[in-house]
This record gives sequence, structure tokens and C-alpha cells, in this order.
Amino acid sequence: MIGDNSKFRALYQREKIKIEERLNNALMYREPVSLYNPAAYILKSGGKRLRPILVLFATKATGGKFSQAYNAAVAVEMLHNFTLVHDDIMDNADKRRGRLTLHKKYDLSTAILAGDSLLSVAYEYLIKDSEDHFKEILDSFTHGLVEVCEGQSMDKEFELLNEVSLEDYLLMIGKKTAAMAEMCCIIGANIAGASKQTIKAMAAYGRNIGIAFQIQDDLLDISGNETQFGKFVGGDLVEGKKTYLFLKAFERASGKDKKKLLRIITEKGIKRFEIPKFKELYSNLGVLEDAKEEILRYSNKALSELKYLNKEKDKDLFYWLTDSLIKRNR
Amino acid sequence: MIGDNSKFRALYQREKIKIEERLNNALMYREPVSLYNPAAYILKSGGKRLRPILVLFATKATGGKFSQAYNAAVAVEMLHNFTLVHDDIMDNADKRRGRLTLHKKYDLSTAILAGDSLLSVAYEYLIKDSEDHFKEILDSFTHGLVEVCEGQSMDKEFELLNEVSLEDYLLMIGKKTAAMAEMCCIIGANIAGASKQTIKAMAAYGRNIGIAFQIQDDLLDISGNETQFGKFVGGDLVEGKKTYLFLKAFERASGKDKKKLLRIITEKGIKRFEIPKFKELYSNLGVLEDAKEEILRYSNKALSELKYLNKEKDKDLFYWLTDSLIKRNR
Repeated sequence: MIGDNSKFRALYQREKIKIEERLNNALMYREPVSLYNPAAYILKSGGKRLRPILVLFATKATGGKFSQAYNAAVAVEMLHNFTLVHDDIMDNADKRRGRLTLHKKYDLSTAILAGDSLLSVAYEYLIKDSEDHFKEILDSFTHGLVEVCEGQSMDKEFELLNEVSLEDYLLMIGKKTAAMAEMCCIIGANIAGASKQTIKAMAAYGRNIGIAFQIQDDLLDISGNETQFGKFVGGDLVEGKKTYLFLKAFERASGKDKKKLLRIITEKGIKRFEIPKFKELYSNLGVLEDAKEEILRYSNKALSELKYLNKEKDKDLFYWLTDSLIKRNR
Repeated sequence: MIGDNSKFRALYQREKIKIEERLNNALMYREPVSLYNPAAYILKSGGKRLRPILVLFATKATGGKFSQAYNAAVAVEMLHNFTLVHDDIMDNADKRRGRLTLHKKYDLSTAILAGDSLLSVAYEYLIKDSEDHFKEILDSFTHGLVEVCEGQSMDKEFELLNEVSLEDYLLMIGKKTAAMAEMCCIIGANIAGASKQTIKAMAAYGRNIGIAFQIQDDLLDISGNETQFGKFVGGDLVEGKKTYLFLKAFERASGKDKKKLLRIITEKGIKRFEIPKFKELYSNLGVLEDAKEEILRYSNKALSELKYLNKEKDKDLFYWLTDSLIKRNR
């Protein structure tokens, strides 16, 4: 497996580069440049490119070829970047991956419109290939878009609420994060012309790995390595975000601890110097362990769906991908 | 024809009501309400519903039935409303059709997201019916979306430029307004399964009537009846907008007149009490007549495309629609 792992890593890297070439070329000669230059700026900001990779891997694992899936891969990455641009406006974020956010680099109007145009070009790429399962692909992409809007709305709503249940939180990340991963897997399997059963299994893989991925993100915020994670540790606490860790801790705490946690809500976040104190509280309440267990539980649920894949090599690829996602440090 | 006209008017009204019922129901039971209530608010703000009517009429005139086209009609109206919500943010507009704009009634985040979700549900409606010409319909809708983003970007760009040519202006309204009308006609004709030639003719009808419609809008701003127009006369001058009238006047003026017009650009608009003076200038330069001629020219170009329609009654319907659009006073 170790030899395979480095092969899989190389494959990921190689395909990531191909996707980025396509993303770079996609908007290059389009006009007006006042619209497409800002849109190209966000597409160049790097990242894991996990969503397009999911499309490619799902296509291949269910019997198709990478070459059939590049346009759809570009489409899902553009859709993802559309959400990033608009979310950054809503969160009033100054930076993303170390660079200015679009509305800070340009202005509000430019950012709104660049986001809109990324979505428009995403659909353009999605419908470039007239596949056999065109309708199913369109359905899935559109459903993913609907869900991501709903998830973001719930997320903004939760910021204003004093009480959010873990159940609501899971519903929200299901829509905001997991729906996108599910969509990528469904699209890939449809491109390959997979059976209904296989598509369903791949969808469940995507949904579960998406949830695991988001809880992992919440966990990394407090336990990650500062340099590798790319942002300072404890940012969610400072912003008063209702993460998995916070909600689990709040559910579990009582007395003084509960009061301390309540402060995160009422004062809309804590000071930076208080982070270690709260990290210790999380640790004492056992919620870091809870998060790790949940991540494993959802990953295993995801992996259990891979039984419908025919080739061991494809299973191995997805095992490696899943493993590297939940062992990542950024 | 007079008898027919009142029949056509009644038909428009009847179908407009049906579309509005569908628009009202579309978001009613959807969650989260924090997303869909604001989206429903803008859908209820009235208007001519011209775009969905174009879809219905184009479907019928090319051999289809209204009943085949309602979902697509809802889709184009939602797409239109998505552009209104985002444009209002970019224009910092307080009111639309006498009601608060979405970002004023709620807030910026809600408005951005409500706009996004209108677009997402628009695609949902568009792909509800799996027509024979599904791919062509998706292509046209997506192309319309791309163009409307490009047109809005050009419009915002023009605000910052000291010189805009009439040619550039026509390119901009071609994308921002006419592309949408063209798209509606193409979708309608595809729903009906019309021939390539008929689809092309309907597209040209839509494109030309869209240009005529926009120049008419520019003309109404200065010559319209205050009460019927719904906003005060001369608003474009006060805002320093580079309309057809302004650009034509600027092209034609010299000496003192040119200097006066230049003020509209350099001072980014005039005072309200100055409107009559500038209206007189427009009148002296003959640009009100120019606009009327252009509107007629584009309408006639549009009408000339109707020769491909088979039934006289369908032609009459489009003649009536075209006529009522260019004779409208709001």
C-alpha cells in the first residue's frame, strides 16, 4: 500500500495541475475584463481542488475516464469559488488563503458580479459535453447549488441565535459542505454511466466524507499546527462561531463551565489570549475526542459505500483519499 | 383588429396572473424561511412579467402550448429577479416599484443570498420538464445568464468612463436587456420543437424588441408621464446615466451645448431643477426624435422576423405585443 499511496499522491497532484491549467485558461480571453479578471483572481488562489478531484476520481472509479470529466470538474470548482466570493462578502472577511478577498481587492459590486459570473460560466462548462446522463448531471448540480445557498443562509441565521442544536448544525453543514461533495460524486458516477445503485453509493460516500471533512475543519481550527493550517489557531473561538466543538461542549458542560461557554455567544467571541483556557476546557470536556470519533464514524460510513466499486485499485484510491483527508493538517 | 387587441390584452392579463400564482407558490413551503421569505418578497413586487410572457407567446406561436412552458416562464422571471436584487445592491438603490429594495428591507448578506437562491431555483424550474430540446434550452438560458452578467459589468464600467460610444452602449444593452428577451423567445420556440429557421427568427425578434424596449425606457425617463411612469421624470439626468439620449446628444452637440452635457459626466449628474433645461437641450438637438426613430427601426426589424410564423393569429398577437411595448408609458 505504501507504494500505491505515493502513486495516488502523484496522481492527485498531476490531475490538480491539469484542473488548474483549465481554470486559468477558462476566463483568459473573455470580455469584459472588468468582470473576468476579478473572477480569474479568485480561481488562482489555490486550495486543495478537492471538489474537481472528487468528480474525476468518481468518474474513473465507476468505469469512466478522466478525459470525460474535466469540464464538469471545472464547473464544480467554479461553483465552489462562487460561494467563496459571496460568503467572504457576508462574513466581511479581509483575507482568504493569505490574499485579499475579492471585495477588498476590488469593491463590493465587482465581487458580487464576479461571483455571479463564476456561477454562470460554471453552468457553461457543465453543459459543454452533452452526455447521456445530461439531465441527471444538471439535476445534481442544481440541487447542490440550492443546498449550498440554504446552508449558507442557515449558517448566517445561526450567528444570531443563542441556541443551536447539534442536530441543526449537522443539517447546516450537510447543506453547506457535504451537499457539494455528494454532488461531485453523483456527477462523476453519472458521467461514467454508472448504475443507479453505484450512483447512490457514491452519493452517500460524498455526503459522509463531506461531514467528516467539516468536523475535521472545526477540529483543526483549535488543534491544528499554526504554520501548516495557514491561519491562527482558535480563530473560530475568537469569532464566536458555533462549531461542532463548541456545540458539543455546550451540550456537555454544566455550572461554571457552561457559563464560560455562554460568554462566547453573548459576547460574540473571546479575546485571543483566552484561547488556551478554552482549548483546555474543550479538552477537559472531552469534545476533542468526540470530534475525532465523529470524523472516524463518518469516514467509516463513507468507506462502507465503496463495496459497490468493482476494482480493488479504485477502492484503494478512495481509501487513500479518505485517509489523507482526515489526516490532513490544513 | 380592435376586437383582437382587447382579446390579446385579456390573454396577457390572464397568463400574467397564472405566472404570478406560480411565482407566489414557488417558494412558499421552502426552508429556511430566512432565505426564501426575502426571495419571495422580490418576486411579489409586480411588474409587467414581460419575460415569462415572451416564453409563453413564443411557445404558442411556434406550435406549442402554454401548458408546456410555465416552468420555463417561472425560471426566466426568477432569473430576471436575481439580476434586479443584485443590481439594486450595486446601484445602491433604496426603492424598486415603490417598495424598499431587498438589501434595504433586510441587509446586504440576505440580499446577496436571496439573489443567489433565486437563480438556483430558476435552474430548478428550468430543468423540471425534460423536454426533447433540453440541451438547447439549457444552452440558451445559461448563455443569457452569462450575457446579463457581462452587460451589468459593462454598465458599471461605463459609469466610471468619461467617453462611451453609442456603439458600446448598444453592445451593453444588447447584453443587459436584449439577451434576456432573445433567450425567452429561443426557449419558447425550443419548447415547441420549432425548426432551426423559426428559432433563429424568434431569437432575432427577441433581440431587436429588447433593444427597442431599452431605448424606449431611456426615452420614457425624460418624456414619460410622472404618475404613470412611477418614478420622477429626468431621473437618469440626475444620476448622470449614460443613456441613449445622452450619448446621442453628446455625439451631436458642439460648443456651449457640448460643455453643458459634459457637466453631466464630470459632476456625475445634475440638480433636479435643471431637468427642464436639459430636456429642452435634448429636444433642440433632436435626440428625442432620434430615439423614437431608433425604437421604430428596431421594432420593425423585430416584426420582419415574424414572417416565419405560420398562423396569422400568432403574427397578430406578436404585432399587438410589439405595438403595446413601444407605445407603453411606463
